Order: sequence, then structure tokens, then C-alpha cells
Amino acid sequence: MATGILPVAGVRLAAAAGGIRYQNRDDLVLMELAEGSVAAAVFTRNAFCAAPVIAARRHLGQAAPRYLLINSGNANAGMGEGGLAASLETCRLVAAAAGVAINQVLPFSTGVIGEELPVDPFARAMPDLLSSLEEDNWPPAACAIMTTDTVPKLASRSFQAEGQTVTVTGMSKGSGMIRPDMATMLAFIATDAQISATNLQQALETAVGPSFNSITVDGDTSTNDACVLVATGVSGVDVNAAASGQAFRQAVDGVCMELARAIVLDGEGATKLVEIVVEEAESEAQARDVAYTIAHSPLVKTALFASDPNWGRILAAVGRAGVSHLDISKVRIWLDDVCIVSRGGRDAGYTEEAGQSVMHQPGFTIRIALGKGQARTRILTCDLSFDYVKINAEYRT
Amino acid sequence: MATGILPVAGVRLAAAAGGIRYQNRDDLVLMELAEGSVAAAVFTRNAFCAAPVIAARRHLGQAAPRYLLINSGNANAGMGEGGLAASLETCRLVAAAAGVAINQVLPFSTGVIGEELPVDPFARAMPDLLSSLEEDNWPPAACAIMTTDTVPKLASRSFQAEGQTVTVTGMSKGSGMIRPDMATMLAFIATDAQISATNLQQALETAVGPSFNSITVDGDTSTNDACVLVATGVSGVDVNAAASGQAFRQAVDGVCMELARAIVLDGEGATKLVEIVVEEAESEAQARDVAYTIAHSPLVKTALFASDPNWGRILAAVGRAGVSHLDISKVRIWLDDVCIVSRGGRDAGYTEEAGQSVMHQPGFTIRIALGKGQARTRILTCDLSFDYVKINAEYRT
Repeated sequence: MATGILPVAGVRLAAAAGGIRYQNRDDLVLMELAEGSVAAAVFTRNAFCAAPVIAARRHLGQAAPRYLLINSGNANAGMGEGGLAASLETCRLVAAAAGVAINQVLPFSTGVIGEELPVDPFARAMPDLLSSLEEDNWPPAACAIMTTDTVPKLASRSFQAEGQTVTVTGMSKGSGMIRPDMATMLAFIATDAQISATNLQQALETAVGPSFNSITVDGDTSTNDACVLVATGVSGVDVNAAASGQAFRQAVDGVCMELARAIVLDGEGATKLVEIVVEEAESEAQARDVAYTIAHSPLVKTALFASDPNWGRILAAVGRAGVSHLDISKVRIWLDDVCIVSRGGRDAGYTEEAGQSVMHQPGFTIRIALGKGQARTRILTCDLSFDYVKINAEYRT
Repeated sequence: MATGILPVAGVRLAAAAGGIRYQNRDDLVLMELAEGSVAAAVFTRNAFCAAPVIAARRHLGQAAPRYLLINSGNANAGMGEGGLAASLETCRLVAAAAGVAINQVLPFSTGVIGEELPVDPFARAMPDLLSSLEEDNWPPAACAIMTTDTVPKLASRSFQAEGQTVTVTGMSKGSGMIRPDMATMLAFIATDAQISATNLQQALETAVGPSFNSITVDGDTSTNDACVLVATGVSGVDVNAAASGQAFRQAVDGVCMELARAIVLDGEGATKLVEIVVEEAESEAQARDVAYTIAHSPLVKTALFASDPNWGRILAAVGRAGVSHLDISKVRIWLDDVCIVSRGGRDAGYTEEAGQSVMHQPGFTIRIALGKGQARTRILTCDLSFDYVKINAEYRT
């Protein structure tokens, strides 16, 4: 058990090697939830959502889930009706072996899009998965859901309420095809708090906004994004009330932020973690347009990789972000606390040395004030390196 | 004179080495237009447009231009009032030496953003530029305006009217920071036709839509985009009338298409020229949203580089392009004539071999039918290679 990763009462996990795509490593995870657990989820808004997303969404609407089944190596996306049948068949395997209904199993897949998901590996691994369920198996589970990730991603928070400890623990995976639009590639968060389904869904949606929905590696929203928050209630602590509810939401927010940040830190080929803050916008939508235009600019991203304060590229990205009636004389841009642009051009006090010293850090903030209003946003991104191209040119070969 | 590049009566050019940034090569071009010439132009819509864009736009509104002054190596962008003063000073140098008004000189710059444009190199080179003006200097001029371009870009067309030959010749530069939004990085096109300013502007705007405004290398719209079309009238052929007007517009369209295509072919690090056609859209705007989402996807672009028919990335890009109520069962995707997606998933007849044989070509078409309407668009883009990262991580160093 990794230091600081707390088990969640009522949640047991198992990982196994199905050999779906990867050899000599685990690629299957079964997550068991205590009876009476409540689940909340958000999914990708990509119109070509994957078969497991369709199945999981449908099952969530029909029953309280008892098992989450996750595979890596194959996204089971873009495979039409056959893909959906395969996803349902993997649920049926769990249901039959564990004695629950099919719609009490939620399937999740991540990996290559457009290849048939083989069901046999699930069937072969099922006895092993069911017999090795343990509360402290979060780390091997987090490893088994990785694709191009280089590190497992785990986070925990706990708080005291009613003389009890309440725990929130989660894991996520994601490295490329990362611009979550409702959720990240995959994230699974569990708590032993007691909470209503409505309050749980609200806590999840609130937490997802500034965390998973405010990160981007390459602007590519996945077909398989899903983020699930389950509450087993086993701690006996009711967090529906105001006071403990706040502590609960803070814990969920903290876990989501830490997991989202870990995804960008592990962005494919990433060497830098860059926070982009846009303020003085007319609306949050406008602030986000500007922030994502900067975050997705290949020229800005390669300059970040080179630690080159080629701020003209940031300025050019702000200029093309579609802000109507932008008065460039009011725009200011900073690298951490170094002002680089004011009054429509290079700030009088700016020196190349000051810019360079910020850019050489492994992480820093690009801040833009638009001079138009009060709205503000904050997103996280990374640079574009040789390794991003290498990883994605070689991913299937 | 390169084969096939025709001089334009009434236009003389000169190139010289100012040493603004590059050593041992030309970086300054002076283009002289016969008295009575008419000019049309389109400029970047980037809010942070460069000082020369501001100056050229202002001068065009005041007088008929006699000289175009172009430098490479420094964009004179992001430099505030000082940048504008520098641009105007370079115009003043030409005006004084050539005996014309300052506002009869249009300045253009391309290169690094955010560095002061030195005026001295212009002053030193001015006598040399004025004394070496020649009608057949298009090739050295096209070389002198290059930045990260690897080849000069030139195109010519001619047609017969009223027993005379009318010529349209142009040059362009551009390789990175290419998603023109009104025009490309820089393009200068000249004709000896006689035409009204209104008809000339209309011919240019019509030509720019499917050419310079339908290409993207990296989605980054430049601060300095400008495309100028001048008509000297020296041929004596009036092309305002319907018949000759059509031949004229065809010639302008042809030159613009050839120059735009050359920019993508020479895209930074590009190894592939890819046409993206989106049809059956509800509107051209919707078709363009889908086309550009595919063209800007780093995952699609690296798959193109790898010649890997990882079509799931194309499908995922279509799915996140924001098309409302997209019925994925109606979407079809082809690589040239190979259907890869139909009925919401991989086409039944698709084979990896067929996809691979298309992707291994140096150029091919990705075609998407949305099944929603009648609108259609076509854009050109290129792949994302190691060399794109290398070029842009090392550009200033």
C-alpha cells in the first residue's frame, strides 16, 4: 500500500493480467462496492462515445452498481453494435460469477480505438479477479488501468465527522487524448460516507469543473472519458448535512484536483506543468476560450518545451482567440510575476533574462488580464516535446 | 528566371541583404509598381496585428501605392507605438529616396515577434534596392521573404484577351504559424491587367477563400498575415468586363491556390499533404469546424506522420467537433476511396491493409460525410513530425 493512499471501507479491488493488448502486466480491474452503495458519474460529451460509456450510462439509470469492470489496452470505441454487445457480455460474466444483475455492473475501457474488444480474456480472468478482491488493492488497480501513462495516479483525503474518519480515495489514468469534457479519461473515486444520490452527483459535478474539466494535454477529447464517484456509506457518517457536507466536498475536490494535476504532469512527453490563468474577461466562457487557445497552440507548447520565453507566440494566441473588440492596449501578460506585455507591446521593464528564469522552471503560470470584465478561469496544461510525437507516431506499431 | 514564372509589366523587384537577423542571405525586398497601379489587400484578423499591418492598412486607405517594402527575420509585432514608428520610418526612407509620398509605400514584415525592428539595415540597403529593380527579380524576391520556409513559393498564370497576353504572378512565404484568417503569412500577387479597385478587391477576396483561408499547418494565426494583389494596367487590357473578367479571376484563383498549396507542402516539418473534405453538413461553418478539428488534432497529425491508419483518432475528432445532434450512425469516413467508418463504427469492408496503402502516400484525402445537410468544405493541412517540434523549439536559439 503506497504511503498516504487510504482504503475505503466497503470497496474492494482486484487487478489481473488478461493479455488484451499488453503482455506481462495487469490490464483488468474489478472494483466491488458494498451493498447499498450510491454512485454518481459524468461521461464524455464526444458524440462518438465508446460502447462501455453507453452501457455504463444505461446501467446507472437502471440499478445501483455493485461492480465496476475496467480494462486497458482496448477502448472498445468506434465498433458499432458489436462493440456494445462485447461490453454487455463482459458485464454478464461478472454478474454470473458474482450473483448480481447485469445492470449492477458498469464497464469501462481505455486504449486503442477501433479494434474489437475480445471477451475471452475477461472470462479467463474472472475467477482470479473475484478471489483476489482486497480493500488495499488501489495501487495495483491504478497500475492496471494505465495505457501510455508512465506513473499510476492515486489520491486520498480524510476528515473527521461525528467522531468517525471519513475517507475519499481515487485513481485516474490519462496521458494523451486529454481534454476532458465532463470527466477525464478514466477516474474512479470512492468514499465510505453516507450520502444521497443527488448530493453525490452534485459533489462530483462541482469537483470536476475546476479539476478534470480544466486540464488539457493535446485538446483531443476522448471517446471514453468517465469519472465515477461511489459512496459505500460503510463509515456510517451522513454527509448530507451542511457541516459535514462541506468537509466531504472539500475532500472530493482535493482528490479530483490532485488526480487531474497528475494527468497533466504525466502528459505524453510532457516536461513542464503550466498553469494558465485568464482574468478580467467578460465571461468565464471567454476566459476559457483564451486559455485553451494558448494551451493548444503548438507554437506556444514547443516554446514551453524549449524553455524559450518567445512570448510573441502567447500574444499571437491571445490575439486570435476570438475575443470581440479586444483593446490590446489594456491586455497584460505575465510569466509568474514577470510582466511581459502591457500597453499593446513588450512591457518596458521586461528583460529576456527575467523571462528565461521563469521558463526554465519545471512549472510556472502564464497569466493574462484582458481588461474587459471580472470573469476568471484557470487551466492546467503541458508542453509539446519530441516524445509526444514519438509516443503518438509509434502508439500502435 | 525560373521556368514558368512570368514577369508582370509595370512591376520591378529588388532583393538585398540587410542583415536584420539572417547572415549571408537577402532579407529585404522592394517591389515597385508603375504609376496608375491599383491595389487590393486582405490582412490578418489577429487582434494583436503587427505594426506594418497597421501602417499598410492606413496607407492603402490614403493613397495609391507605388512601393511595397518587405523584410524577413523580424515581424515588428507586439512592439507597441515604437513598432509603428519604426515601420513608418522604413516607409519614409523609401519615399525620400524614390520621390514619392510616405503613404505610397506599404510595409510588410515577417519573422520573430517581440523584438525591435532596426531601421538602419533599411537605410543602408536603400540605394542598392532602388538601383537593382528588375522585372524578372521574382525568384530572388521570393527567396528573400522566406523565414523557416525551405523553398521559395512562386506561381504564374496568363491568358489572352483583346489580342494581348495578361499575366498574373505571385509569391508567398509561410511554413509555421499558419492558419491564415483573411490571408496567408505574406503573399504578393501582381498583374498587368487594367481593373477597377472594387473589382480587384473582389477578385482577391474570392480567390483567398478556398486558397489561403483554407489551409492550416498548426492552427496558429499569424500577427502579420497579409495578401496583396496589385494591377499595373500596363498590358492595356481592361478586365472589368464579364468575359475577360472571368479569365482574370480564374488566373488569380489559380495563382492563389498554387501558392497556398505550396505553403502547406512546405509546412514546418511536414512530410504529408492532406486534403480534408467535409460534406453533408448543415452549413459551411459546421463543415469547417469539423475539418479544422481534424486538421488541428495532434493525435491525427502524428498518426499522419506515422502513416498509421489509426482512424479512431479521426472519429474521435469528428465526435468532439461540436456538431449538435450528430447521428453517428449516418457518419461515413473515407481515406481516399477506402471507406473506414459507416453505421457508427468500422466499415464492414475495411481492412487495415487498404487503409495503410492510402496513408503511405505522400498526399491523400480524408473525407467525412456528416449525413446532416448539403454544405461542403475542403481544406489542406499537413502532419506533425519530430521536425515541427525541432524547428519550433529551436527557432530563436
